[in-house]
Amino acid sequence: MKKKVTKVPKFKDFKTTRATSSALEKILYKQIPILDHGFIRVIDYMGTDQSIVQAARVSYGEGTKKLREDRGLIRYLLSHWHTTPFEMCEIKFHIKLPIFVARQWIRHRTANVNEYSARYSVLDKEFYVPEMDQLGSQSTTNKQGRSNTLDKKFAKQAQDLIQKNSEQLYDDYQNLLNGKLLNNDEYVEGEGLARELARTTLPLNYYTQWYWKVDLHNLMHFLRLRADSHAQYEIQIYAEKMVEILKKWVPLTYEAFEDYRSDSFQLSKEAMKIVKDKLANKKIKKSNYKLSPRELRELEIKFNIKLS
Amino acid sequence: MKKKVTKVPKFKDFKTTRATSSALEKILYKQIPILDHGFIRVIDYMGTDQSIVQAARVSYGEGTKKLREDRGLIRYLLSHWHTTPFEMCEIKFHIKLPIFVARQWIRHRTANVNEYSARYSVLDKEFYVPEMDQLGSQSTTNKQGRSNTLDKKFAKQAQDLIQKNSEQLYDDYQNLLNGKLLNNDEYVEGEGLARELARTTLPLNYYTQWYWKVDLHNLMHFLRLRADSHAQYEIQIYAEKMVEILKKWVPLTYEAFEDYRSDSFQLSKEAMKIVKDKLANKKIKKSNYKLSPRELRELEIKFNIKLS
Amino acid sequence: MKKKVTKVPKFKDFKTTRATSSALEKILYKQIPILDHGFIRVIDYMGTDQSIVQAARVSYGEGTKKLREDRGLIRYLLSHWHTTPFEMCEIKFHIKLPIFVARQWIRHRTANVNEYSARYSVLDKEFYVPEMDQLGSQSTTNKQGRSNTLDKKFAKQAQDLIQKNSEQLYDDYQNLLNGKLLNNDEYVEGEGLARELARTTLPLNYYTQWYWKVDLHNLMHFLRLRADSHAQYEIQIYAEKMVEILKKWVPLTYEAFEDYRSDSFQLSKEAMKIVKDKLANKKIKKSNYKLSPRELRELEIKFNIKLS
Amino acid sequence: MKKKVTKVPKFKDFKTTRATSSALEKILYKQIPILDHGFIRVIDYMGTDQSIVQAARVSYGEGTKKLREDRGLIRYLLSHWHTTPFEMCEIKFHIKLPIFVARQWIRHRTANVNEYSARYSVLDKEFYVPEMDQLGSQSTTNKQGRSNTLDKKFAKQAQDLIQKNSEQLYDDYQNLLNGKLLNNDEYVEGEGLARELARTTLPLNYYTQWYWKVDLHNLMHFLRLRADSHAQYEIQIYAEKMVEILKKWVPLTYEAFEDYRSDSFQLSKEAMKIVKDKLANKKIKKSNYKLSPRELRELEIKFNIKLS
Repeated sequence: MKKKVTKVPKFKDFKTTRATSSALEKILYKQIPILDHGFIRVIDYMGTDQSIVQAARVSYGEGTKKLREDRGLIRYLLSHWHTTPFEMCEIKFHIKLPIFVARQWIRHRTANVNEYSARYSVLDKEFYVPEMDQLGSQSTTNKQGRSNTLDKKFAKQAQDLIQKNSEQLYDDYQNLLNGKLLNNDEYVEGEGLARELARTTLPLNYYTQWYWKVDLHNLMHFLRLRADSHAQYEIQIYAEKMVEILKKWVPLTYEAFEDYRSDSFQLSKEAMKIVKDKLANKKIKKSNYKLSPRELRELEIKFNIKLS
Repeated sequence: MKKKVTKVPKFKDFKTTRATSSALEKILYKQIPILDHGFIRVIDYMGTDQSIVQAARVSYGEGTKKLREDRGLIRYLLSHWHTTPFEMCEIKFHIKLPIFVARQWIRHRTANVNEYSARYSVLDKEFYVPEMDQLGSQSTTNKQGRSNTLDKKFAKQAQDLIQKNSEQLYDDYQNLLNGKLLNNDEYVEGEGLARELARTTLPLNYYTQWYWKVDLHNLMHFLRLRADSHAQYEIQIYAEKMVEILKKWVPLTYEAFEDYRSDSFQLSKEAMKIVKDKLANKKIKKSNYKLSPRELRELEIKFNIKLS
Repeated sequence: MKKKVTKVPKFKDFKTTRATSSALEKILYKQIPILDHGFIRVIDYMGTDQSIVQAARVSYGEGTKKLREDRGLIRYLLSHWHTTPFEMCEIKFHIKLPIFVARQWIRHRTANVNEYSARYSVLDKEFYVPEMDQLGSQSTTNKQGRSNTLDKKFAKQAQDLIQKNSEQLYDDYQNLLNGKLLNNDEYVEGEGLARELARTTLPLNYYTQWYWKVDLHNLMHFLRLRADSHAQYEIQIYAEKMVEILKKWVPLTYEAFEDYRSDSFQLSKEAMKIVKDKLANKKIKKSNYKLSPRELRELEIKFNIKLS
Repeated sequence: MKKKVTKVPKFKDFKTTRATSSALEKILYKQIPILDHGFIRVIDYMGTDQSIVQAARVSYGEGTKKLREDRGLIRYLLSHWHTTPFEMCEIKFHIKLPIFVARQWIRHRTANVNEYSARYSVLDKEFYVPEMDQLGSQSTTNKQGRSNTLDKKFAKQAQDLIQKNSEQLYDDYQNLLNGKLLNNDEYVEGEGLARELARTTLPLNYYTQWYWKVDLHNLMHFLRLRADSHAQYEIQIYAEKMVEILKKWVPLTYEAFEDYRSDSFQLSKEAMKIVKDKLANKKIKKSNYKLSPRELRELEIKFNIKLS
């Protein structure tokens, strides 16, 4: 089955006086492949690191213009949750993704979306089949996760089943659309079922596509949650590609994002106490702190300490 | 297959001094069945018609307190798009609905949602099979709609196919979850596939459920679009049940909603001209107006006039 | 008092393959003066008319690509409230405006804002004094409007008072900031009051400034309400300048906006009935229709008819 | 000047089966005074701690119903940024506050607001004059803050000036509204200036009032930023009263909020390194870490350590 992609007319070179990111221009419109049939590509963007600084300085007025370097200001803004200057940048993606991934994605409401409509058009025969090494068993520690073990023989059978069912369902989908009536062992073509009904028989691993536009602040919020190891693998790798795009687009913001968001750690009131006591070489008695066993374990791992 | 519904502990009678709608209290928590397995029930609400008036009067100050009756004020606010007082009321539903309906629904972003997670729990064997009279063919006038005709024999075969496939896929789903390995023509149970992967093999006609909370202004926006005849039947009937709930909850607002929203008609600049000319008994020459054939036809139908 | 404007470094010419509006590029960064000290200027934008079409076609899929011209599609989308494709364009303004105008403006929540902070920096001595022909009396028909009459002598005194008070209050503001203590009829300079407190003594006609970023759909919603004759004059003229910018930026959308939004008219259920009856040459008896005197009067004016 | 408050008719006792907080019912509608003329009062609410649990369990499905206690689940949700269940509760306040406080407040966009309109009604003669101990000088360490020192004599003069100017401006406001013409040293009453213009002459320390409705998640976001010591005092004390209301309304959530939000501390990537090295008794050389002097100082204070 040949991939059919909605073609976006490649824009010619224009002259502009808008803030322009030359690194991002280089990959504009280019498809970055993800999973077996998915992709991300950047369609448009507004602003650069400098636009954040510019917006912040309106909010601070003139006095501080020379006081701070751009990098320092961006780090200060991000670490102190002054989020509005980051909302001044915007990016627009064209994304092809399995429907079950789209269902998680859309829960982030502060973005603009235009999705391909299967009421309006027929879906392509493109579905997601996990690679062998992604076919994990239910995690025993994480109620919503997967482990990386599964009997190989069973994994192969599972993969085959997903492949076979997905193909069979597409045949049925087409027969429904074409009104193929099974008449004495022969198909007779007639008036078919409405697209808006036929589509409901396809499984959640089929691909859809959309335009997704978001401001930089909300993009980083999305990435913090979805490029995280607790996110489902199939959305995680989309998020990871977007982190790479972030790095090209706004390198100073990307650096601050890594330091103050994705690699940061939030200490609760009780965790603060325990770390403080440990730093003061006090003897730690776990039961003196209002922390669950999971929270205590997490502290031990994060700080490489032993709490007895 | 017995329906398993997440039970909501029925709250005992409480005393409250909050604004209370006695008509809505009567149906609180009760399931209103929709489609073959779906339902809506009201879980909670905030405010009544009087709360809208009250909020509006804060913004208008004391001077006007006696100037308007509640009903008149609500009609004035709604017809003049003073939307903020309607945002002061809120309602929370528990809804069970097919996934393809949920996908349309969620596009209304100004609401709060908690959905049942199939990463976390196993889905029930509940799927939507359209009634015979809903199995329509693709509409020839509406690219996203269905007509109400279809060869009965084909419709029956389509219905059977949807039923059979949905059942087969649930069996496969359970086998994937349970690690049932087909070994020499016999199943051997082992460690199963993670829930977050197994669920991706189910089709879009399976039911999901969620809590959905929305303010009155955004609810009416949703209802205007989804209780409309252009909406897909399967979301329309949810919306229609909600219109009935609206009527119980805020009867004055409901009445204004019917008059100024759902049964209103927006005349474009050019349509205004044509109606005005017609009222002045001028001879109408269609080509003098910047209207598409579809727009002209719509005017003829709406106003029961002939434009030659 | 010389105007001090936060300077935005004019970006050099860049090459870009992004969608580019050459008409908008010509006025980028340029201040369009409004009122006595205010202005609007476009700082950045994303997308053109073509971007709307492009986004809509992802949602419609490939099938319809040749069926519609861009103009027709944009008109169809706008008139049928398919709003999401218009959310795919974005524009960013730098605006200087009186605080009381900013207070109305900010009620439109679906936008991004960075305001000049008077906690952080000292405000300039710039305040709004209405022109003589703007000094109207309270409207007798519109509880929130002004008429265009006022005794000229009184208007002049009012204008003088506003000027004088605004100047006096700025002197006091500076004295508070500088800690000028009146000691035996002479000022002694000392440690001054914190900016965040001193600013609270200035009146609402002082100017503030902000960056305001909004998508095209929400911009049109703002313009429909604020470029309307019922809006306060001082916000109306900002909106009117923005309508001119809209025309340069997205000419096809602008045209559809005029036809289907700003010059359209919404007929309620009852108003529909009356127009229909009138078109059928029925005798109209006002009391047969559930319309208020104001609604009846509005119909008479809009359609140039007589309802007896 | 006697305080005039928009009276809200006290609702009688109703019976309800909605989730009800008996502690919050006790203070419903009651004014909690703030500053010299301001107040907060709770007008309505939806949901309790149990509603959060209930909503979360829909999202988790049935499986976990007995696994966790309510308290543990709420703490888990809050600490892991599962924010949607908290959006299922809603609260509505009636608030009287100085305009400059309202201007900061409104920047939180995810809330519903109905404000008293000074285009529509005349403002009361109520303005904010800071207490002597609040009249601080500009902070030298915080560009947007105040210190707690100021020459007492100057502070008294500042206070008198604010009082005197506020009164004088209200007289002028009334004269503008009443058309009082100063004619040869005598006032002649005539047609006055429109309210929408007259109001622009009043200073930012005048009181306004509004209904403000927000969900629990966004309320906590507001409180984390505004009940913080870096917020301006005059908004902080509103936020502090709301934290007390939070405690009455949803005690389990309040407790988790204190532990995981308001009293928590976010360690950046580099700060993590330094704490970890310190815990491992490594010798710390400040310059080895990518932290600003301010960040290093903050760490020393927070953890009571010495970094040389």
